[in-house]
Amino acid sequence: VTGHKAQTEPIVFVNGRQVPPDGAHVSARDRGLTLADGLFETMRARGGVVFRLDRHLSRLFDGLRVMGIPEPSALKQTVAQAVSAAGAADQSIRLTVTRGPGPGGLTPPLNPTPTVIVVVNPMPSFPGTIYTSGLRAIISSGRRNTRSLSVGLKTLAYTDAVLAWVEAQRSGADDAILLDEDGHCSEATASNLFMYRDNVLLTPPLTCAALPGITRASVLELAAVAGVRTAERAFDPSELSLAQEAFLTSSLRGVAPVSSLDGRPIGNGNVGPVTTRLIAAYKALVDLECSTT
Amino acid sequence: VTGHKAQTEPIVFVNGRQVPPDGAHVSARDRGLTLADGLFETMRARGGVVFRLDRHLSRLFDGLRVMGIPEPSALKQTVAQAVSAAGAADQSIRLTVTRGPGPGGLTPPLNPTPTVIVVVNPMPSFPGTIYTSGLRAIISSGRRNTRSLSVGLKTLAYTDAVLAWVEAQRSGADDAILLDEDGHCSEATASNLFMYRDNVLLTPPLTCAALPGITRASVLELAAVAGVRTAERAFDPSELSLAQEAFLTSSLRGVAPVSSLDGRPIGNGNVGPVTTRLIAAYKALVDLECSTT
Repeated sequence: VTGHKAQTEPIVFVNGRQVPPDGAHVSARDRGLTLADGLFETMRARGGVVFRLDRHLSRLFDGLRVMGIPEPSALKQTVAQAVSAAGAADQSIRLTVTRGPGPGGLTPPLNPTPTVIVVVNPMPSFPGTIYTSGLRAIISSGRRNTRSLSVGLKTLAYTDAVLAWVEAQRSGADDAILLDEDGHCSEATASNLFMYRDNVLLTPPLTCAALPGITRASVLELAAVAGVRTAERAFDPSELSLAQEAFLTSSLRGVAPVSSLDGRPIGNGNVGPVTTRLIAAYKALVDLECSTT
Repeated sequence: VTGHKAQTEPIVFVNGRQVPPDGAHVSARDRGLTLADGLFETMRARGGVVFRLDRHLSRLFDGLRVMGIPEPSALKQTVAQAVSAAGAADQSIRLTVTRGPGPGGLTPPLNPTPTVIVVVNPMPSFPGTIYTSGLRAIISSGRRNTRSLSVGLKTLAYTDAVLAWVEAQRSGADDAILLDEDGHCSEATASNLFMYRDNVLLTPPLTCAALPGITRASVLELAAVAGVRTAERAFDPSELSLAQEAFLTSSLRGVAPVSSLDGRPIGNGNVGPVTTRLIAAYKALVDLECSTT
């Protein structure tokens, strides 16, 4: 409170330059808009430090290679500039890279000029109760596709995730878990899924169309450090319903407990001890890695 | 040639107003860009008349209802204005409706303000040889998802279609046919698929994750008028490889013959008589419906 102004407006950078947050930023012919021809990362920052930025960028670069989109230069510097412009408070960062404008049709331009967008917002304030009471989840009626050409990539094609989210809200739930075409649990709308049972922490393998989440990897590391046995193994909703504990992981929510599935409690319906330890351990990890001292 | 200027620049309308074609049109926070949270239609026009505009709008409105995006007002008028601004020559029209800007995350705004974009370009000039020599198609390695929540909707999520197109180009082909998860032929990257064999014209049913194409419907009508037996029935690539004729349908290319599949000729490798008749019949239909006299 000594001259610090709280960030209220988003900070927006397009192609390396800060632009006003309101108004237009991108061409109507940008293939990110017309064809979802691009990728993105969602990250968190504190004190100007982006949590596991290199892992996010590495995943993004992998995706760009698969899609044949040239790697934009100075991406890391642009993120740093945007985060710095936003100040030291907890922030969410959305980094989007598209193949850039195109003449129409599917044919990618021979020499594409990718569009790079960085939007920094104050961290959204999740109801604190999600960490103490847990989320109500449903099994979505939609399926994920393990044989999509973009499986495992964080592309802009989030239409189905939006529709599953809407499906969850309509049934009075907080989030939806999607199955793959074989009926295995894949992931939630924008989070990875974990279940704990019989002393093992399970998460679906990437072959179940689960995204290789950065928080997912962090939690697997933390569990190993804490002596919790982990496994990447396929399971279906009937096995999930028998879990003692379950939670979702994502960059912004971190570790978010699931208290019920399709209206029936997971375990005793309270947040269990393993989940509670991992919530704390993940918070401590962010504190540690985003410490600026 | 009496004072008419050929249209060289695209005509762009955003939210009902014409804007310069270059530069920025859409917010970086538009959910069409961030989440592929929107729908589109591709249409053709001649002499200022859009071919089967009402059917395109009807399909779009169906999709908006499923996605819970409010129907923008005056859509038809905006398309008419954009087409009129572009002149009388053959044009392609891309109409995009997104859920509009959002604050971030999946949660749709309670009262969304949809973004409406109309881009009109001169009709692309396809090599005339595609109608006389046919397209070389491959079977894509990626699969389509019959159980996606957005199946049958023309959403902005075309990432997989772009990747399948790139896959086709890399193998020296012109287009790729995607299968559904059961191994049935679904459609090409941005076209419906037809095969002709034993006096029946077949196209995959919508349950094989085929989009309800406007040109697909037109061709089914034309075939019926011409006394060609038609059926919507699932078939797999091995049956397709035995076809006497095959073709793809889309709004811009119309009826485009397929001459080979994975390097092996379809039929005798020439454009067959049924396909030839339907190419001519479809062109005549466009001439008729887009006649302004």
